[in-house]
Amino acid sequence: MSLLLKLIKDRRSVREFTDQEISKDLIEEILEVGRWAPSGLNNQPWKFLVVTKKEVLNEISNYTKYQEIIKAAKLLIVVFLDKEASYHYLKDVQAVGACLQNMLLFIHELGLGACWLGEILNQSKDLSKYLGISDHLELMAILAIGYPVIRERISTRKELKDLIIGWK
Amino acid sequence: MSLLLKLIKDRRSVREFTDQEISKDLIEEILEVGRWAPSGLNNQPWKFLVVTKKEVLNEISNYTKYQEIIKAAKLLIVVFLDKEASYHYLKDVQAVGACLQNMLLFIHELGLGACWLGEILNQSKDLSKYLGISDHLELMAILAIGYPVIRERISTRKELKDLIIGWK
Repeated sequence: MSLLLKLIKDRRSVREFTDQEISKDLIEEILEVGRWAPSGLNNQPWKFLVVTKKEVLNEISNYTKYQEIIKAAKLLIVVFLDKEASYHYLKDVQAVGACLQNMLLFIHELGLGACWLGEILNQSKDLSKYLGISDHLELMAILAIGYPVIRERISTRKELKDLIIGWK
Repeated sequence: MSLLLKLIKDRRSVREFTDQEISKDLIEEILEVGRWAPSGLNNQPWKFLVVTKKEVLNEISNYTKYQEIIKAAKLLIVVFLDKEASYHYLKDVQAVGACLQNMLLFIHELGLGACWLGEILNQSKDLSKYLGISDHLELMAILAIGYPVIRERISTRKELKDLIIGWK
């Protein structure tokens, strides 16, 4: 099996993390793979806020019902869409998805684990205010990252035949 | 360098393809990596239309100014957001971006090349009508795929320091 296919199929959402810290070098490597995602007209509309301080993690955890995941994480990468770099909202949001997926795959390859948190968007406005984020940055997602507690994680997908609507 | 980082950094948009056909098995493998993308609540809101027939490729090429890329491709994967599977538009569009990126990386790993076409969204309605697509499927992007004409392809990205808005 190709290494990429194996990475893609083996990756799981990780919600429980050990106490091990993540080095600054690794954090920069993760952002590096995000940076190299494709985007329409190569406009690269993403911006990153890195959070590692315990007190900031704890405060951010108050803005989602998945509080425990954030509190357990050693690192958050908060991803924004920069409206000043944006040229087509739909394509830009897809590009942010590609950027997130690059990071998720790389995190898994590194032996780290992550949970892609979207529910926190329900409190975007209040969270951005707490974080002091400029108005032109729209919250897209948070990756909660750490070294995974080892346990079996199972996931499933729809059958390919149910996803292909035609073959012309 | 990690294999994934190398794949991500080396991948380029490919707009010129050779005459070599892509096997049905490879096409299914490409869709397989798309199928394993993550999505909010694992709702998997993507649907795929596969196009390999020359006359259909040629007709689709009329709906974009990047006509030559589509006409040169041996395969189109037309990706839709299935509104019946959707639960949160913004998160679903990000998930489609992750699905597209899985396929783009795998296409590159296979030695194939692809161009992610978004400009064709300007004519979504007319194209969906021509293709006979149900109203609940929204066109997201087309991947134009083939074996690449070999030539140097260069790309750049913004500096990481310009993407990180803070470190808390």
